[in-house]
Amino acid sequence: MTEFQKKYDALRAAFEQTLSDRLGALSFKPSVLDESFRYSLQLGGKRLRPVLMFAAAQMLGGRIADVAPLAVALEMIHTYSLIHDDLPAMDDDDFRRGQPSSHKKFGEGQAILAGDALLNYAYQICFEECKKGRTYLNAALLIAKNAGALGMVAGQAADLFWQGQEGAGEREYEFIAQNKTAKMFMSAAAAPAYVYGADENTAAILLEYGKNLGLLFQITDDLLDVGGDFAKLGKTVGKDEREKKVSAVRIYGIGYCETKADHYCELCCKLLSDLPYECGFLEELTRTVRSRER
Amino acid sequence: MTEFQKKYDALRAAFEQTLSDRLGALSFKPSVLDESFRYSLQLGGKRLRPVLMFAAAQMLGGRIADVAPLAVALEMIHTYSLIHDDLPAMDDDDFRRGQPSSHKKFGEGQAILAGDALLNYAYQICFEECKKGRTYLNAALLIAKNAGALGMVAGQAADLFWQGQEGAGEREYEFIAQNKTAKMFMSAAAAPAYVYGADENTAAILLEYGKNLGLLFQITDDLLDVGGDFAKLGKTVGKDEREKKVSAVRIYGIGYCETKADHYCELCCKLLSDLPYECGFLEELTRTVRSRER
Repeated sequence: MTEFQKKYDALRAAFEQTLSDRLGALSFKPSVLDESFRYSLQLGGKRLRPVLMFAAAQMLGGRIADVAPLAVALEMIHTYSLIHDDLPAMDDDDFRRGQPSSHKKFGEGQAILAGDALLNYAYQICFEECKKGRTYLNAALLIAKNAGALGMVAGQAADLFWQGQEGAGEREYEFIAQNKTAKMFMSAAAAPAYVYGADENTAAILLEYGKNLGLLFQITDDLLDVGGDFAKLGKTVGKDEREKKVSAVRIYGIGYCETKADHYCELCCKLLSDLPYECGFLEELTRTVRSRER
Repeated sequence: MTEFQKKYDALRAAFEQTLSDRLGALSFKPSVLDESFRYSLQLGGKRLRPVLMFAAAQMLGGRIADVAPLAVALEMIHTYSLIHDDLPAMDDDDFRRGQPSSHKKFGEGQAILAGDALLNYAYQICFEECKKGRTYLNAALLIAKNAGALGMVAGQAADLFWQGQEGAGEREYEFIAQNKTAKMFMSAAAAPAYVYGADENTAAILLEYGKNLGLLFQITDDLLDVGGDFAKLGKTVGKDEREKKVSAVRIYGIGYCETKADHYCELCCKLLSDLPYECGFLEELTRTVRSRER
């Protein structure tokens, strides 16, 4: 196991502990809501966004604990989006991380509500932590903007709008990838800078880094949809083509996607090197996203 | 037109202006999201929750402008819940306020996203206003708690769970009504007290008033479902019975529902009279909810 992998696992484990502590203190009624709320959060996954947030906090000289509640909130928002995305009226996927998706397990109505509950709770955490005196306001605003109609939801709406339609090209793909995927990475990467009140330049570079890491993530996601396999991904593959989704592979072709992925990867590393911090871990994280699951 | 009606209309008009000003400054992409976001918000309705919040603010000696952004946020949360509630997997209603519901107009996927966008945006407003220096933090936390898995969503999940099932009784009905309906009224009634930092007793009474007003609203809603008509309500009637929903009429019968409604109405007025403020408008508002639409 490499030093990078050890550190990634440690950050992920720290996140799992934080999440588990918080969930342990919660109890919702009715029991179906309690179960559906926990189920999707605890399916695990790489926890890439929380790990990114923790790593950015450490890079800036801070501690995991400084941003841990924000990381939980962001992961709740990410999880709500997956639950709603998997619904038959959206991306219609029966599996998530190798397990039945929320609506297959709890029914569509309860899945919609599980997503709604996670979204509300994510913001409840932000308000609670602000009340405790944490300097979370700017970061929470960043997260809310990037999650909603000026961010992720806009990307999802465009993605859904163009699915199966003719005429979507590079511009539409870029809009979808930037909003649906990259804005959540921007929140993860830059939130710690907002929490610490870092200078504007640092925040701007972390936002730009997050954006390009998100674009890299999306393009490798699209490549995996044609080249990946279910056992590794835990979700259905080959859907983009079957359902005529706006995917990088359909717009650019596999070869140019690989080139673009390399470009985003290098751009990320360049941005990190512009920061006056030790960025070795984030650089390796970037390269791992580039070469993931294959 | 009575003095009460004049004042209600003035408060509602003030809310419409606030909402319209805010929406005027917004522009979302893709256009389907921009439309779906505005559509459900602008279907109108009685605007009972914002009017309640404004009236409570005025009763406490404040101004509409003090809580206007919070009222918009609360109405956005209410509107998201209606959009999701109308979905086929939930309450399955094709009409809302006499118009096609969101999923009939934009499709199910876009309706889910319109709701998600409204919910995210409601909290974005709260963070923005906190950042501008408003004392909204406690009120925003109240709103988030009462909207999510400890409030409205819990009520919706229980409502959906029990629909069509045998065995739901008084306890289940009370849980659903208190969470799904009353908690949003609690937020509306008590938020101004939190904004002004009113004493605990005032906040507690307003919370209790909001709760009982919400219970009154729900029981009259259930009575209207058996006795109302589509032209006045703008939504399908007779659904509770057909779909074996947990309704007050099914649990208590019409006669006892009327008795209970009177009880909640009197309790609300008693609570208001315990406050050292001029509460004539809220008292009339309560009586109007008791006798509404018939």
